[in-house]
This record gives sequence, structure tokens and C-alpha cells, in this order.
Amino acid sequence: MIFKMKATQGSIGDGVYPSFVKIVEVGPRDGLQNEPLKVPTHIKIELINRLAAAGLRTVEATSFVSPKWVPQLADGTEVLKGIDHKPGVSYPVLVPNLKGLNAAIAAGAQEIAVFGAASESFSQKNINCSIDESLQRFSDVVRQALNQGLRVRGYVSCVLGCPYEGKISPLKVAKVANAMMDMGCYEISLGDTIGVGTPGEMDTMLTEVSRLVPVNNIAVHCHNTYGQALANILMALQHGVAVVDSSVAGLGGCPYAKGASGNVSTEDVVYMLHGMGIKTGVDLEKLIDAGNFISSFLNRPTSSKVACALSKL
Amino acid sequence: MIFKMKATQGSIGDGVYPSFVKIVEVGPRDGLQNEPLKVPTHIKIELINRLAAAGLRTVEATSFVSPKWVPQLADGTEVLKGIDHKPGVSYPVLVPNLKGLNAAIAAGAQEIAVFGAASESFSQKNINCSIDESLQRFSDVVRQALNQGLRVRGYVSCVLGCPYEGKISPLKVAKVANAMMDMGCYEISLGDTIGVGTPGEMDTMLTEVSRLVPVNNIAVHCHNTYGQALANILMALQHGVAVVDSSVAGLGGCPYAKGASGNVSTEDVVYMLHGMGIKTGVDLEKLIDAGNFISSFLNRPTSSKVACALSKL
Repeated sequence: MIFKMKATQGSIGDGVYPSFVKIVEVGPRDGLQNEPLKVPTHIKIELINRLAAAGLRTVEATSFVSPKWVPQLADGTEVLKGIDHKPGVSYPVLVPNLKGLNAAIAAGAQEIAVFGAASESFSQKNINCSIDESLQRFSDVVRQALNQGLRVRGYVSCVLGCPYEGKISPLKVAKVANAMMDMGCYEISLGDTIGVGTPGEMDTMLTEVSRLVPVNNIAVHCHNTYGQALANILMALQHGVAVVDSSVAGLGGCPYAKGASGNVSTEDVVYMLHGMGIKTGVDLEKLIDAGNFISSFLNRPTSSKVACALSKL
Repeated sequence: MIFKMKATQGSIGDGVYPSFVKIVEVGPRDGLQNEPLKVPTHIKIELINRLAAAGLRTVEATSFVSPKWVPQLADGTEVLKGIDHKPGVSYPVLVPNLKGLNAAIAAGAQEIAVFGAASESFSQKNINCSIDESLQRFSDVVRQALNQGLRVRGYVSCVLGCPYEGKISPLKVAKVANAMMDMGCYEISLGDTIGVGTPGEMDTMLTEVSRLVPVNNIAVHCHNTYGQALANILMALQHGVAVVDSSVAGLGGCPYAKGASGNVSTEDVVYMLHGMGIKTGVDLEKLIDAGNFISSFLNRPTSSKVACALSKL
């Protein structure tokens, strides 16, 4: 399934593209979680504060996953308690289960995210249960969170491909996304976790998902492993998707694996959107500074092409 | 000006996207021309032969510019005489003037390319004359080339921005492109030389150019300096453009300048196109081998994300 294109007198902002795109900054969580170099709590707090100061309205701050699995984010409570809670900014945290939820609430979380998969093999290998079982588990977490007045965001991973089983049926993605909406998630972030998708597959998948989930509730979460992220995001914008996950400086992936790049960089996404006349509320210069701050700490070049190009001027 | 999008029952190949895209491989010329490490003639020949063997039908082989300006390509004659001239493959060479044309013809060139700019400042700084004067100069070259039975491709540089004057009027691009068509070029390659454009600007520019130049005669030539190349190419495909310039391993740019990445990599373009069901005739595996061959010689990691991701498997 693909769009028919018709040249018209329309212009950006008249409904063809979203006039505003909300960026969900995932660097401090998704970006740092596999980082082998231990990042001190005060650096994480500084990073999150800088990202919010750059105009980002959603900054995923940390996770409340067992420190056995994600040692880098074992300081979730200290991070969440330490950051400036800037008015108008949401700081969701990832929680895998009720234990995580309780810890998150104790630390003052007002929004959580739960993480499901559209691939059976991925679900089995990563959380040791089937998709249906994982949805059952999430539904308890989501119910409790909603009862406590929290907002809940849902992730669906492997939407354009799975490292274990390859192609994923768009209908499967749609059903998992729909189940998470039914639980009470206010937004579903569709993740191309391994970055293999191209705009054709993004198009087909979004066509299928948007039959069940309103496009206003859909976000895309693209990894740039095959360089396809911005093209896939452009396709998503053309579907009316107006929420994009990204990671400052392209933090993420596995820094030990050659070429295993991570999330699409927030700087590159913002540059594209602003160039298209789409507002984000983000100050690109401050954003680049925040990215350079964490890249300097990690002693690594940024993975953002835009930060690279503009920082050398 | 932007497209209105309408979801329909159409599918790839029914006229929405081109069913076949011709890749114009520019690595051996545009990619290597600024390379400070002297690449021996036999390595260039091997690279070009490998690219043709990978299924590329157009491989820009070298240039016949003064060796004072482009010392790397001083062996243009030896390269052109040394390569396998695979049937069905075109090996254009860049020529700046009549002297270059004569040298190219003596070396057996059957196709040349001429290089104009849509920016007055860029034209002045790079070839010491105005755009109008450059067009006059090219028109002599093109006329002689056509008289000798050669095919001529035209480049227009700085179509989405100029390093000296910033924004470039799409109308200016259209007029220069049209003038080069009028001279007898069979194809006009529109170059975002500094990689600053976003899909919005690509859209506006192509809308303007295609008023004067049939879309079947338009190619796009994107640099990935700001990470926008694939998104811009996607937009061009949506305009019906079916010729894309790219450079194996992302060769190009200035290797000494941090982050000054070059042309979009052929591997990433081919991956996107194949993922969208668009044929190119290129064998991705052989292409990656060709890119790894030259990257190894240059002792540099590839700039292709796809080559990086697939080579580590």
C-alpha cells in the first residue's frame, strides 16, 4: 500500500504535513542504557536539564528496570529526584513491571512507558514470555499507573523487522498497538528497533496500524543503523504522524559493535523539520550544545551529522 | 508548494514511484577528486570495473580538469583507457572546457559531463566567471561534443544552498537547468553540493524546475553533510525523478575536515530503493565489496551505514 501523490497548490501547514511535531527525547534512557562507561548521576541530571532547557517537552529520563539488566540506569531514583522539573515538560520513565512502577512512583514519576514487541521471538528472548503474556503483564502495570493518576506511553518494538525472525506482519504490529491503546496508553511509539526498515515498509506498516489506532496517537521511533531513519520519518510525517522519538547526539546502539549506530539523532530530526517549516519548539543551538556536552563526557564524536556540520563552523 | 497525499489502493510500480531507478555512480570522480592520498591508476581501474560488475550502468570515471586543480585525477587518460568498457555501461567524464573535451575524446570518452552552478557567488569563486559566462563556455563544449557524437550530462551545483550566499532561488535553478537542456544535455543532475537542503526545499525546487525541464531528464545529486540525503531522495522519487547520483562508500567531501561527509553512499540508496520494491539492477553485495575495496585502500571506515551494518554480520 502506498500513497498516490498529486501536485497541488497546498503548502506546508495546511494539513499536508503536521505544523508542529512533538519530539520525544530518549537519549538519557534509550541512548545511555547500553553505554558501557558509567555515567555519573550528576551528568545525567545536567544532560536532562539541558535538553529541557533546549525546548524539548518530553524527555525520557531513566528506567526502573532491574539494575542487574541495566546497570547504567540503576540510579533512576536519584536522577528523577535530582532533575529540575520544568513546568510543561514531561519526564517519562520506562517500567517493566509492578515493582518498577512502585519505585517510579516513589521517585515522583508522573508518566511511565511500557515496552512491548511485535515479534514473538523478540518477546521470548527479551522478556521470556509470549506477546500475549507480556500484554497481560503490562495491563496490570498500566491499570495501576492510571489509577494513581499517571500517564502511560506504550512502545512496540521490532515493527519493521526482528533480529530473530526477520519480517514482521504489519497486522501483528497493528494488533499489539491497538491492545496497548485499549489498556489506556495515550500514545504508541512504533519502533524500528534494528533500523532495517525503508520508507516503503514504513508506509505499509503505518497504513495498517492507522486502521486500528488514530494517527494522532502514533509516534515513530527510528534507529539509523541502515541510514534510513530520516527517510522513514518523512514517510511517517506524510501519514500525519506528529510525534517523533529521537536521541540527542544519536546516543544509543552498542558502542562496541562497529557501525551499530543507535537512535536517529534529535539534531538531524529537528534540522529536517525546521527546514520543512514544521515547528518543534526546540532551539537547535542549545540542543547541539547538550549533545556536545554528553559526547564530550563519553569522549566520542557525536553521531549527529547536523551537530558535526554546525559545530565545525 | 508541497504534495497533497491521498491514501489509495495503489502500489509501488503503478506509476507512484518509479519502478526502476538509474544510479549514477560518482565515486571514482566526485568521490576521489579531493582525496589527499594519491590513489594509483590501477586501483581506480579496479574500482570502476568492480562497480560496473556490481550492475551499475553509469560510472563517472574521471575528469579532464587541469591537474593543477585536481591532481588526484591527473591520470584520466590512463584510467579511461585502462578500464573494461563493459557493454551497456556508460563511463562519463567531467570536462570543464574545450581542452578537456579534446583530451577526453582522445582517451576514448563517449560521454562527458559539464558542471554549472545555480549560485552566482559559487560560479565566480569556482570558475571565475558569471553563470551566464559559464553557460556560454559550456555551450561551445557541448556543441563540439554533440558534433563528435558524444552524449552530454549537465550538473547544476548549489541547487539547495550555496556556501557563500546561502539560499538559492528555485527559479534560478530552473533557468540554469533549462539552459543546459537547451544546449543539448540529455540529463540535468541537480546537486545539493553542501548537503544543506531538507525535503521541503527539495520539493519546492523540483516543483519549479519541472515546470521547465521534463522530470524524465532530471537527476538528483545529494550530499549527506546534514544527514538529509535519503529523505531528499525520497522526496525526489515522489516527484517522479528516476535518476540518482551517489558515491560508493560515501566517498567524497574533505577527509581532513571533521564531519564533512561527502556524497550520499550508493549502498544506502540502493538499500532504500530495493526495500521499496524499486529495481536498480545493482547487486548490493558486490557493491558493498567494491566499497570495502576502496575503503580498505584508503584505510578509512566506509561512510555507508548499510555497508557498515551488513559487513559486520
